[in-house]
Amino acid sequence: MTMVAIKTQLITAQNFAPFGDILDASGTPDMAINQGLCDRHHDRAKLDFGPDGRAGISIFNAQPRSLPYVLEMMERHPDACQAFIPMSENPFLVIVAHDKGGEPDKPRAFLTDGKQGINFHRNIWHGVLTPLAAPGLFAVVDRIGDTPNLEEYWFQTQYVVNS
Amino acid sequence: MTMVAIKTQLITAQNFAPFGDILDASGTPDMAINQGLCDRHHDRAKLDFGPDGRAGISIFNAQPRSLPYVLEMMERHPDACQAFIPMSENPFLVIVAHDKGGEPDKPRAFLTDGKQGINFHRNIWHGVLTPLAAPGLFAVVDRIGDTPNLEEYWFQTQYVVNS
Repeated sequence: MTMVAIKTQLITAQNFAPFGDILDASGTPDMAINQGLCDRHHDRAKLDFGPDGRAGISIFNAQPRSLPYVLEMMERHPDACQAFIPMSENPFLVIVAHDKGGEPDKPRAFLTDGKQGINFHRNIWHGVLTPLAAPGLFAVVDRIGDTPNLEEYWFQTQYVVNS
Repeated sequence: MTMVAIKTQLITAQNFAPFGDILDASGTPDMAINQGLCDRHHDRAKLDFGPDGRAGISIFNAQPRSLPYVLEMMERHPDACQAFIPMSENPFLVIVAHDKGGEPDKPRAFLTDGKQGINFHRNIWHGVLTPLAAPGLFAVVDRIGDTPNLEEYWFQTQYVVNS
């Protein structure tokens, strides 16, 4: 089995744009609310729950991983987006790939800065939730619906994500 | 002006049930995903964005407050629910009230345990977002729509929230 190393880079709205949205308080707030005591960064995610789906909020409690991380599988959700909001200030690992003929192309690995959530757009290949510290607690906004809404791809190539 | 003291209590799914949902990883997970490495606590919020609204995710950055906290105003959203997901492990203050003829009845004050988000149901009187530590960073899932969706009530009575 071939082994391919992937280096992480810090995630930004720009480098993540082909895959989804960064949910954070960067940039100028869209409005000041609550007598000026709260900045609102308005409507930051491109949400899409499919024709027969609805939005839900679930809580994910994931076991922390560590680097180097061996990536064996990626998945995608054909019917909807999926947003991950960390409930701690711990950076987490975000792995995504472009599609190449129905399979993930070479994966890219990002690290958040501890103050960012992310939203994967519909049908974007991504790794499973990979916190790097406890608690691996996330609020997940995704589709509630009747379809499986899941496609998995197991690699022949072994990808190893390094810091 | 009359001054009335309010003591905080720890928030639970039970004591908060008349006002909304607790978004946390308590109890038995509804499913294990990602090869058993992640627990999913599924669809924990009763979401409701009104007939012409849609869900959005915004980021709120609020100035931390401290106790005792003087409560001057409460608000409610007639067209939709509003969920607050803390992006830190800091407990925050949650103030709610039953409705009494179009005005908030005596407020109740809750403290989260640092691992809980909350969802206010539609039209529930609540205080503005009151983190008690920095960063006061929250992901907010609420209605994106054309109506004002906001009613404010300024108290004659002065309520002081104590720990």
